[in-house]
Amino acid sequence: MYKIAIDMMGSDEGPRQLSQAVDHYLKDNEDVSVLLYGDETILKDCFKDSLNLSRIQIVNTSSIIPMEIKPLEFLRAKDSSMYQAINAVKNGEADAVLTAGSTGGFVTGSTILLRNIDGVERAGLCSPFPTAKDGNGTVLLDIGANNYNSAEEVYQYGVMGRLYSKYVLGVQEPGVWILSNGTEEGKGTEEVVGAYQLMKERNLLGFKGNVEARNALDGTHDVIVTPGYAGNIFLKATEGMAKIMNDLIKQSFKTNLLTKIGYLFSSKGFKQMKKTMDYRRFGGAILMGINGVCVKAHGNSNEYAFYMAIGVCKKMIETQIVDRIKEEFAK
Amino acid sequence: MYKIAIDMMGSDEGPRQLSQAVDHYLKDNEDVSVLLYGDETILKDCFKDSLNLSRIQIVNTSSIIPMEIKPLEFLRAKDSSMYQAINAVKNGEADAVLTAGSTGGFVTGSTILLRNIDGVERAGLCSPFPTAKDGNGTVLLDIGANNYNSAEEVYQYGVMGRLYSKYVLGVQEPGVWILSNGTEEGKGTEEVVGAYQLMKERNLLGFKGNVEARNALDGTHDVIVTPGYAGNIFLKATEGMAKIMNDLIKQSFKTNLLTKIGYLFSSKGFKQMKKTMDYRRFGGAILMGINGVCVKAHGNSNEYAFYMAIGVCKKMIETQIVDRIKEEFAK
Repeated sequence: MYKIAIDMMGSDEGPRQLSQAVDHYLKDNEDVSVLLYGDETILKDCFKDSLNLSRIQIVNTSSIIPMEIKPLEFLRAKDSSMYQAINAVKNGEADAVLTAGSTGGFVTGSTILLRNIDGVERAGLCSPFPTAKDGNGTVLLDIGANNYNSAEEVYQYGVMGRLYSKYVLGVQEPGVWILSNGTEEGKGTEEVVGAYQLMKERNLLGFKGNVEARNALDGTHDVIVTPGYAGNIFLKATEGMAKIMNDLIKQSFKTNLLTKIGYLFSSKGFKQMKKTMDYRRFGGAILMGINGVCVKAHGNSNEYAFYMAIGVCKKMIETQIVDRIKEEFAK
Repeated sequence: MYKIAIDMMGSDEGPRQLSQAVDHYLKDNEDVSVLLYGDETILKDCFKDSLNLSRIQIVNTSSIIPMEIKPLEFLRAKDSSMYQAINAVKNGEADAVLTAGSTGGFVTGSTILLRNIDGVERAGLCSPFPTAKDGNGTVLLDIGANNYNSAEEVYQYGVMGRLYSKYVLGVQEPGVWILSNGTEEGKGTEEVVGAYQLMKERNLLGFKGNVEARNALDGTHDVIVTPGYAGNIFLKATEGMAKIMNDLIKQSFKTNLLTKIGYLFSSKGFKQMKKTMDYRRFGGAILMGINGVCVKAHGNSNEYAFYMAIGVCKKMIETQIVDRIKEEFAK
């Protein structure tokens, strides 16, 4: 039985959507049980008609970690749903922790309570991205756990990202690239240039060089690493542009009666497109480098996205990715 | 008569497309004359049927600035089309310089030959972006003249970007934002946080705070400033995503016979969308902070894009933007 600890509070959508996702996921996966942290009264009500109560344990908590929190404040927030959920992994009560709450709080809390894997300098957030080729995902890290990352840290993201792509996503020989402002060696900030050198010197398996942001999502790049600030700008720039284009597509079809008729004829193709570009099917980001499976769902996860995020937890437990990273860094 | 010096070499498309743009622009603008730098034999052939020869002067040059060049190498490349074109502004033979060649070479060359405006610490590349709202452009700088920028430099981009938006684009009261990984004060790298402080302390007109990359192009942000590395990642991430979405739209319409019929009905809306998101109508990027009008067209500019870039030169001369920046920094 895979045990997953879930912070049910702190999402933009509230606990009801998350509860539906949990119940649906338990119905589809009989080898999973959950520990749910949050307001007991609300959660009991959410699950009152559930057929999976034997695999659900609700733990009452009385506070929610705010969007911005300092390490000391986190340590004092023992009664919060996020603290308790992370702590369940620490105590061995759960094999993974999932939250849709504060990213900063989750990075801080996981690092304090579970600690980094020996040899890992700094955990990074790893996000799968949809690409131009349906089925060919790209994983990018760090997408914003940190403002700064040293060359060594970016190198380590390459090591971890490669293992994730290989063992969790099943890519046979993942290629690893560094996000930069030019493809040539020597392009980029000091840390980016330094990471390039380390990957070459240490012969990182699959290392291919730099990739520019405009080609990152063309479906031919398995793993892309970057310091967290640039990764965050990249993530949000692509999200923003995808949203603008989607809105313009809708407008285009609404132009006049003819374009509306056009939509009736072409909606099938556009539904496929929407599916290809749907971030939600990836479920969220993985906090890589921590001594435990830590998954961060989008703050505005709907039922489908949160369902997928629970699946990411299970997949990470199944494929023993944390142990594989530990082994790699113990060499 | 506005005199524009143009580097006709170094574009990916070769000098013929650029020549057509020049000739077309001269036909439409009788108050403009050009100094063209490049291979005399080719250029004379390109313009052999031109009706605007009285406003065209061709200067033969024998080399092309490569994509990557060091300052000393640039100084030795006196026989290159880019060196000569920039030098024409220095000598007062031209009021503006335009190139579709190496960005790095252009930044280096303009800085060496024309120098920064007194008080400006570092020139930045400023690019207009299409946004979700047709007609509401956003200007972003620096998009990649530099890898690093100090807080002071980012602050100065705010000053210059605001003047550009006001006097060149005609925005009455431009708002100025800093690109960051969060909207709250204190979010971002050290330079970004420092720039925020400077803008507050010095009461930069129109300063509104931080903007996240996902909202940058929603049509409500006139000016956005950022250190060059993050700006370059932003620029290319949005370009890449726009291309992916365009490709998927094409695929969507090709799904089957019905979707093809759908295209016939809805093509009008999509043509409008394509126009809204067409980067080429902005013509290229402006090198801001240099003692002279310096415009960098896209390396793969077609005739339309290069025509628009010549228009950017004229508009910058007309509106005396360089003098306005000089006045501001002389205060």
